[in-house]
Amino acid sequence: MTAESLEIHLASRPVGWPTAENFALVRVPVPTPGPGQVLVRNQLISVDPYMRGRMNDAKSYVPPFEVGAVLEGGAIGAVVASEADGIAPGDLVLHGKGWREYAVVDAASARVLDPELAPVSAYLGPLGGNGLTAYAGLLEVAAMKPGETVFVSAAAGSVGSLAGQIAKLKGAARVVGSAGSAAKVERLLALGFDAAFDYHDGPIRESLRTAAPDGIDVYFDNVGGDHLEAAIGALRTFGRAALCGAIAQYNATEPTPAPRNLAAVITKRLTLRGFIVTDHAALSGQFLREMSGWLRAGELRYDETFVDGLENTPDAFLGVLRGENLGKMLVRV
Amino acid sequence: MTAESLEIHLASRPVGWPTAENFALVRVPVPTPGPGQVLVRNQLISVDPYMRGRMNDAKSYVPPFEVGAVLEGGAIGAVVASEADGIAPGDLVLHGKGWREYAVVDAASARVLDPELAPVSAYLGPLGGNGLTAYAGLLEVAAMKPGETVFVSAAAGSVGSLAGQIAKLKGAARVVGSAGSAAKVERLLALGFDAAFDYHDGPIRESLRTAAPDGIDVYFDNVGGDHLEAAIGALRTFGRAALCGAIAQYNATEPTPAPRNLAAVITKRLTLRGFIVTDHAALSGQFLREMSGWLRAGELRYDETFVDGLENTPDAFLGVLRGENLGKMLVRV
Repeated sequence: MTAESLEIHLASRPVGWPTAENFALVRVPVPTPGPGQVLVRNQLISVDPYMRGRMNDAKSYVPPFEVGAVLEGGAIGAVVASEADGIAPGDLVLHGKGWREYAVVDAASARVLDPELAPVSAYLGPLGGNGLTAYAGLLEVAAMKPGETVFVSAAAGSVGSLAGQIAKLKGAARVVGSAGSAAKVERLLALGFDAAFDYHDGPIRESLRTAAPDGIDVYFDNVGGDHLEAAIGALRTFGRAALCGAIAQYNATEPTPAPRNLAAVITKRLTLRGFIVTDHAALSGQFLREMSGWLRAGELRYDETFVDGLENTPDAFLGVLRGENLGKMLVRV
Repeated sequence: MTAESLEIHLASRPVGWPTAENFALVRVPVPTPGPGQVLVRNQLISVDPYMRGRMNDAKSYVPPFEVGAVLEGGAIGAVVASEADGIAPGDLVLHGKGWREYAVVDAASARVLDPELAPVSAYLGPLGGNGLTAYAGLLEVAAMKPGETVFVSAAAGSVGSLAGQIAKLKGAARVVGSAGSAAKVERLLALGFDAAFDYHDGPIRESLRTAAPDGIDVYFDNVGGDHLEAAIGALRTFGRAALCGAIAQYNATEPTPAPRNLAAVITKRLTLRGFIVTDHAALSGQFLREMSGWLRAGELRYDETFVDGLENTPDAFLGVLRGENLGKMLVRV
């Protein structure tokens, strides 16, 4: 009897919003690790909006997912067999081979986690790529300074909620967040945001003006489109926008409305800068020290939304795109 | 008999393209300088696209022109009476009180020019604000490095033609310009641009791809709109755009089409940065040394288009907005 493993494959490329037909649950034999590799049984799989981009056949900063191949992403699991020095069965590892039950992982790209230091799921959230994205985007890309006013969109998401809290911890005078429901707005206020609004409640421009009547200095953009236009309108002279994501556009089949007020980028001497977390790996050490300190001290909190069952990973992913998550969306395998 | 002076006033605020009705030629007594002031008879008046913005009643980096008051801008003239130490009748001075025959100028804001060093008109062009705009935008805002490919729009204008030549002098591997006529394209090639195209000849995206098949690293934007969209498409990873002007939009009465490909700012980690020359005054010394060296050596050339007669200043200004100038547009009073 050969043991079997379930995987989620990309069955076809989505056009617009992904549907169930774009994914296939496939049964394969459990693979065998080669020299320098480990076999991991996944426990937690990360689903993130950026994965939508990789489902298109478009040149970008990472190659597109292949049709007929497994979808990959951040995951944590227990090593069940090891052909690598320094990693033993039972070790919990963080790696990039998600969306399947069993994964063969090169030891060099697996990171052994110490579950005594933090709940392991934190390594897919505040202590992982999401945390570094928030930290680098705010402090390096947007160069936020103490005393400034910061606006974060998709602020109840895994990156946004961290960005807003880091801003406060780093001395922002005022932090404003936008989110997609009244419950999320309440949560943002509980997390220490000075003001928050539901972007469904009216023109973003007006909601932002109410929340930050004197304007903003920094915009952490996870949305693009009308959020970015409103932020450009609100940014003060020498303001900066860190462009992290554009979830408003990921499923668009037509070009989406673009900010029509780019002339203000000149008159107000604004800087709009796109970034990708992997370019900021040099910050990792400083980030981990600060972030783990804040977590230990209870000064920074993070939310997680769990979906159970590998077969529900596509649904969890669609849920993130629809904003059904509070904080980090994770699949428990 | 009181001597008289002619001035151009803003008669009404233009809506869309300015017309003759927005301007008034007014006869006033020649004013008298007070203590610390000089009376200047203007010889050359600068007309620049940015002045269109000041004709609107909109908050910006400079206050709007007042209806019923004289329009102001860069000018050069001879001192005819002086109540200030250090400036004598006969001195040629650069100042900001253009659009009139006689101007009273505070000595502190007048700069005495040495006509032996350079043709005085150069102080309204390559040795003045236009030159510093090109220099600071290219080297400080866009941080151009040797070996890079640079694209300049409105490249036959006073700022663009300097930006492109400075790029070559500073070691750009390839410099591409866009302009509005075949004659201007020819002139750009004569000035040392590696490639140039008339933006009327086809989609800018395609013309740019032909002119810079491997993409660009730096975009010096004088136009906005579809030029900016094409440039974002052509920019390579970590590319930078210095946003200097948006002449495509100055006379628009509706929001103009905006770049619909801002998501590429993220995936390619681009930086779009608006700037105003006055923020870069700290570069002035270095700029003047380098620029005057290039001019003396004949390594940098500049074009001038002259219109005669103060009463034709509004026409000259409209001509700049329509792109009728090659290089700097100047009015000879």
